[in-house]
Amino acid sequence: MENKPFQHYYPEDYSHCYGCGTRNERGLHISSYWDGDETVCVFTPREYHTAVPGFVYGGLIASLIDCHGTGTAAAAMYRREGRPMDSEPPLRFVTASLQVDFLKPTPIEGPLELRTRITDITDRKVAMETDLTVKGVLCAKGKVVAVKLPDGMKMK
Amino acid sequence: MENKPFQHYYPEDYSHCYGCGTRNERGLHISSYWDGDETVCVFTPREYHTAVPGFVYGGLIASLIDCHGTGTAAAAMYRREGRPMDSEPPLRFVTASLQVDFLKPTPIEGPLELRTRITDITDRKVAMETDLTVKGVLCAKGKVVAVKLPDGMKMK
Repeated sequence: MENKPFQHYYPEDYSHCYGCGTRNERGLHISSYWDGDETVCVFTPREYHTAVPGFVYGGLIASLIDCHGTGTAAAAMYRREGRPMDSEPPLRFVTASLQVDFLKPTPIEGPLELRTRITDITDRKVAMETDLTVKGVLCAKGKVVAVKLPDGMKMK
Repeated sequence: MENKPFQHYYPEDYSHCYGCGTRNERGLHISSYWDGDETVCVFTPREYHTAVPGFVYGGLIASLIDCHGTGTAAAAMYRREGRPMDSEPPLRFVTASLQVDFLKPTPIEGPLELRTRITDITDRKVAMETDLTVKGVLCAKGKVVAVKLPDGMKMK
């Protein structure tokens, strides 16, 4: 795996996301990498990320699948265009749809490992599937469709 | 609408959720109420809940739909059983599946209003659909299936 996560390539103006922005001081700062044709994100929940004691609340799982998904979409599009992630113009994606199936209670001690496979890619859209495991046990599955940042969200 | 939100009826042992638990000091403390046959949750994001500046990150939207959904499920089941929310045994739900369609960038100044309709209810499961609007503009739609808390998540 490369040393530098996808999120460190985001333009500064687009690095404020609570889930994945390097410039959000309060945020989760998730980090995503290639591992062959899959992308991987490992995250250790904080003790307050509880559903009931001992388990992770669903919103965190949804957030991780979502933000790891938009990072994966950008990385996949750079690959498709055959250019490095620090080349111009920068690519930044948002989520159009998110589906999460919570299969088992997810232990909060983690670490949570997300592995994502691209299932479809077009000029403006990336579809993917994610498995979230803890110590090898599949706890949740996700599907994300991410699209290029719409004009309405672009910085002036 | 009643004055007391659903989440204030949760048993203390099950009030630690980051999204909706009254006993989670770091959490979002969302509050849900009946309004006729719909349930309503109004939430004002914090300034750090950003996607890009000016807009809410998707994980917050997913968290709100999710936790408002489990609260709605409990309230709907008490209604179905024809008993008040402070009667025994207490009901607490978790999410089995969550679907979010992000239709428009969601302004962070909010407030975000979630309105949920029950689409199916059985002895152990509640299905519902949610509209998330900001100042009357539909920004996201959600579908949740919530199930009664599984034995593996029950407190000893």
